[in-house]
Amino acid sequence: MRVLGVDPGTIVCGWGVVELAGSRLIHVGSGTIDAGRGDISCRLALVYSELLSVLDEHSPTDLSLERNFVARNVQSAFRIGEARGVAMAAAAARGIGVSEYTPMMIKKSVVGYGKADKAQVQAAIARLLSLPELPRTDAADALAAALCHGLTGRFDARVADALSLRGLSRGRGRSWRTARL
Amino acid sequence: MRVLGVDPGTIVCGWGVVELAGSRLIHVGSGTIDAGRGDISCRLALVYSELLSVLDEHSPTDLSLERNFVARNVQSAFRIGEARGVAMAAAAARGIGVSEYTPMMIKKSVVGYGKADKAQVQAAIARLLSLPELPRTDAADALAAALCHGLTGRFDARVADALSLRGLSRGRGRSWRTARL
Repeated sequence: MRVLGVDPGTIVCGWGVVELAGSRLIHVGSGTIDAGRGDISCRLALVYSELLSVLDEHSPTDLSLERNFVARNVQSAFRIGEARGVAMAAAAARGIGVSEYTPMMIKKSVVGYGKADKAQVQAAIARLLSLPELPRTDAADALAAALCHGLTGRFDARVADALSLRGLSRGRGRSWRTARL
Repeated sequence: MRVLGVDPGTIVCGWGVVELAGSRLIHVGSGTIDAGRGDISCRLALVYSELLSVLDEHSPTDLSLERNFVARNVQSAFRIGEARGVAMAAAAARGIGVSEYTPMMIKKSVVGYGKADKAQVQAAIARLLSLPELPRTDAADALAAALCHGLTGRFDARVADALSLRGLSRGRGRSWRTARL
């Protein structure tokens, strides 16, 4: 399983690709797209084309995004939404599925504490992925989103395995992922 | 000049293509993308692929979008932003430029009154484009955005012509379009 995490932004957009091979967590690549402060449609076009390049270079199987429920103001929500839309469109263009997690779920999965600050997320990412130095905050947030999806998927698979060993099924209703959103 | 107007939405997304040939306004095509109420990333992927089909079928030279400054709430702003981002990414994927206009500018350019209601916009669109019946409101809003861009561009060109006939230039500073935003 190879997951692209994106921290969507129209000024700086973080991205990070991780691979989960058995119990190993591998850092495939990460970085930031610095779109500057020019015309918004040009910035979004840049984010879109750079994300397509990342998708083509690293061939992830899934896209993981942070799902915000709050924003500084309505204008800020419009801008975050635009960047998220562009990321989802890029994933759609390459036929990969999108999963969304709340900031609290993402922090909890990598730090173990849902209200961790940015520095704690950076440190946890560097430790989990054995990075030689701390990643930039935007790249760290993207890697955290990617890890959250990978680790959640692994947990789901283990639960399913355990249930099937006991001849049980997960039952009807919402999936684990949906249920925890 | 052939303009695609989009009224971005993640449930219903309106689109309309108009051509401006001299003083004639021609309705090339219009419709709505009904994305339903399922998974948001699937809806955005559908809007993206349908807009790409529209772009490929009608080959517009410009994309015109309504630029909102208000939303019912922050969640609604996220959703509108996502749909706008997808539309801009589709335009970027086909290499066409994006222009944005406020709702007031769009209404003023087609109805002559910036606070016109939806029914007045529909009636004005049907009259200006000689449509046999009223378009759906989402398609009408998209056609209005397209016409606004076309008519504003035509006005700009006439002003530039008039100034050049008199040996004047537009002077430095913001362009007409920016100045009126």
